[in-house]
Amino acid sequence: MTGAKISILTLGVEDLEQSLSFYQKLGWKNSTHSQDSVKFMQGNNIVLGLYGRAALAEDANADETNPPSGQFPNVVMAINLASEADVDAFFKLAIDAGASPQKNPEKAFWGGYSSYIRDPDGHYWEIAYNPFVKFDADGNLVLEAAT
Amino acid sequence: MTGAKISILTLGVEDLEQSLSFYQKLGWKNSTHSQDSVKFMQGNNIVLGLYGRAALAEDANADETNPPSGQFPNVVMAINLASEADVDAFFKLAIDAGASPQKNPEKAFWGGYSSYIRDPDGHYWEIAYNPFVKFDADGNLVLEAAT
Repeated sequence: MTGAKISILTLGVEDLEQSLSFYQKLGWKNSTHSQDSVKFMQGNNIVLGLYGRAALAEDANADETNPPSGQFPNVVMAINLASEADVDAFFKLAIDAGASPQKNPEKAFWGGYSSYIRDPDGHYWEIAYNPFVKFDADGNLVLEAAT
Repeated sequence: MTGAKISILTLGVEDLEQSLSFYQKLGWKNSTHSQDSVKFMQGNNIVLGLYGRAALAEDANADETNPPSGQFPNVVMAINLASEADVDAFFKLAIDAGASPQKNPEKAFWGGYSSYIRDPDGHYWEIAYNPFVKFDADGNLVLEAAT
């Protein structure tokens, strides 16, 4: 288990293709992990994710009651860990440190294992295990470039 | 000039000491760059910044008219470049790519050179040159650990 390493920064966006084009012009590279509904772009350290605003809020379990959707900041930082057990352990560490549980660790529809916490100011962090991605020697996510 | 590399992620927070303690428990290390009004924490790839909500909005030139402060997301991604000329060039590249200018490049009170842009969805990016920081071989910011 390792902390202090942001794996993915995901921005909620309105128009995925427009945002993909924008960040390509700024130097990020599209990857084979991208799908119609979500884009993952390789940066030189962390991965930039682009996701529809509503879909991102739904994935973060942020609806009108949990907490009010008006407060959802459209930004999620993700920490990817090496196993489901590591996710459980880091989730507990964060809660013990004062985070609020937003989504308890659970199997995700995309084949991984995911949880969400909110920091003391309501910033969202996903703590996840993804069996389909690789890490480099520094522990940063490495995505295959899209052709 | 290099893009696709996030140098600092800064979160707007209510209580700096509380947030500092929270992120220390999660593994980030406080650094000598921290001051009473702002904290900079070393992570294993990008730096995590903590700043008062109002101060962060002010630094980003986000007041009630530019744009409505209710839309300010309390999150700023920063790209640190190697010179003022690189900031000017990347700022122009971003505007040409479809970003909105939020603060034109200018000398900053802290001794550097800084600008802000908004992406097509209103996410804030600072493009800056800071003569007081070092980079590692991978181009990530390296801060001195606070004792």
